[in-house]
Amino acid sequence: MKVLVALGGNAILQRGEEGRAEEQFRHVSAAVRQIIRMIRQGYLVAVTHGNGPQVGDILLKNEYARSILPPMPLDICGAESQGMIGYMLQQTLLNHLTTSGLEIPVITVITQTRVDPDDPAFLTPEKPIGPYYTGEEAGHLREERGWEMHRVAEGDQGFRRVVPSPDPLEIVEHESIRTLSDEGFIVISAGGGGIPVCENEGGKLEGVEAVIDKDLAAERLATAIGADTLLILTDVECAYTGFGTGSQHPIEHLSGAEAQELLDAGEFGEGTMAPKIKACIRFVESGGKAAVITSLGQALDALDGRAGTRIIP
Amino acid sequence: MKVLVALGGNAILQRGEEGRAEEQFRHVSAAVRQIIRMIRQGYLVAVTHGNGPQVGDILLKNEYARSILPPMPLDICGAESQGMIGYMLQQTLLNHLTTSGLEIPVITVITQTRVDPDDPAFLTPEKPIGPYYTGEEAGHLREERGWEMHRVAEGDQGFRRVVPSPDPLEIVEHESIRTLSDEGFIVISAGGGGIPVCENEGGKLEGVEAVIDKDLAAERLATAIGADTLLILTDVECAYTGFGTGSQHPIEHLSGAEAQELLDAGEFGEGTMAPKIKACIRFVESGGKAAVITSLGQALDALDGRAGTRIIP
Repeated sequence: MKVLVALGGNAILQRGEEGRAEEQFRHVSAAVRQIIRMIRQGYLVAVTHGNGPQVGDILLKNEYARSILPPMPLDICGAESQGMIGYMLQQTLLNHLTTSGLEIPVITVITQTRVDPDDPAFLTPEKPIGPYYTGEEAGHLREERGWEMHRVAEGDQGFRRVVPSPDPLEIVEHESIRTLSDEGFIVISAGGGGIPVCENEGGKLEGVEAVIDKDLAAERLATAIGADTLLILTDVECAYTGFGTGSQHPIEHLSGAEAQELLDAGEFGEGTMAPKIKACIRFVESGGKAAVITSLGQALDALDGRAGTRIIP
Repeated sequence: MKVLVALGGNAILQRGEEGRAEEQFRHVSAAVRQIIRMIRQGYLVAVTHGNGPQVGDILLKNEYARSILPPMPLDICGAESQGMIGYMLQQTLLNHLTTSGLEIPVITVITQTRVDPDDPAFLTPEKPIGPYYTGEEAGHLREERGWEMHRVAEGDQGFRRVVPSPDPLEIVEHESIRTLSDEGFIVISAGGGGIPVCENEGGKLEGVEAVIDKDLAAERLATAIGADTLLILTDVECAYTGFGTGSQHPIEHLSGAEAQELLDAGEFGEGTMAPKIKACIRFVESGGKAAVITSLGQALDALDGRAGTRIIP
């Protein structure tokens, strides 16, 4: 039984924390302990993860040093975050496996995700990234770097850069990842949804200034490596109908079609639960046996069908 | 015939340049063109690379943002640089392979390198890293962060942090890398000499504040993956006796023992040619067929024995 575990970026660097390396390693340990429990129960595990908070910090550092060092584009910053988070996960997994007497090789693979250059998202960038700016700074950045800047909050520092979040078409390295996974490696890949690349007119891959939803990318990965289950771990124990209202109700089981109906009815928060549900629907429609949304603490129970929201074909 | 190609960090980001992503991609392309020529001639290639200039920039960005974001330790910065450089190499290799009609999977593996916590280098840190500081700043950093600070240049901004450069004992992921290489993958690994880790008392791996010489790490990797040839690419076409003197003389062939004699006699620059020669000696003493030092432009001729310095058992 192969499971792709998709960890939220917030599972590793949490809002309100400083973001020190020790804090991140501590959160990684908590996630790894759950993964080890899955392995002990016989699951074959592959891992992917978000990178929002980490790439945000990398972007901010680039901005702070921009008077002396040219800021790196988003594809490079994404690659840096894959190295960083992959290293923490890989080292911690290896340590916990050794302690558990398990000899399983762990490998972090730098991963690109192909998107369509004609994706409509490129016409209307909407995903805010990086630091907050004043209106004046935002104006300069629009002019100097051609960035799209939106007001995203009230007050003085209310502007942020927005970039497109195109739909992931394909994990470029999926064959390698599948081979490794089939041979028994625990593969950590497609971090942050993968580094967004487009095929240019000459047929060559090129990084683009965009971000990819990590859950939608996780579905492409899970399908490509032949996972039975896509396990999306997030801050809540399950998906709800009427979330945040007086009639909030946990969802236990849904068919793909039922999930699609609720999604179309706007039951799920854009940018939070909606892309997760969308990823789950796609997964079961592409041949996956089950997609599960739950919290880290409920992960094992949810795999056994005793917690979380489960979407089946 | 398996070759491990070790690219210098300066081969990708050169001194005197701004370090923009496009510049780095251009240098990566030049390196990749040579690698493609090797593949066309039938060599099985694995790749490793330095990260000096890139990790220097990452450290500098960390320092610039330190008032609002905690600086990351060296192991994390090294992991970031592996992601960044690995991505550039991987994408460019893939593009050139496709153009050449070659279907070979390329994979970048985040790599740790184990060092001995009792390595004498930990007692006398000597490798300067990161930005330059004034004497006053250096004093603060000594106190606040316990950094070892040395004066490395005349003038106002003459101080730098120095860290240990312990001898690499083992590439932690060497079995995975060998498996992938034997299966025909072009593996990019051990970037920047690998992320330095020590085994702590509980037997767990832990990052350490150190840097690893990339050529010495390349030797460990080349030996572990069963490479026939270790090819070290650098700024000069070969090693010399009397380098920089009136009687400078290129070296064509050396046995391991001859190389050791010249090394002991101080013929080679510390921190430049000496570690490369040392890596070559170790490689042929550990069963490698030949170790070659040359420039990127001479790489193919040097593999054929028509250029560069060749060290044989």
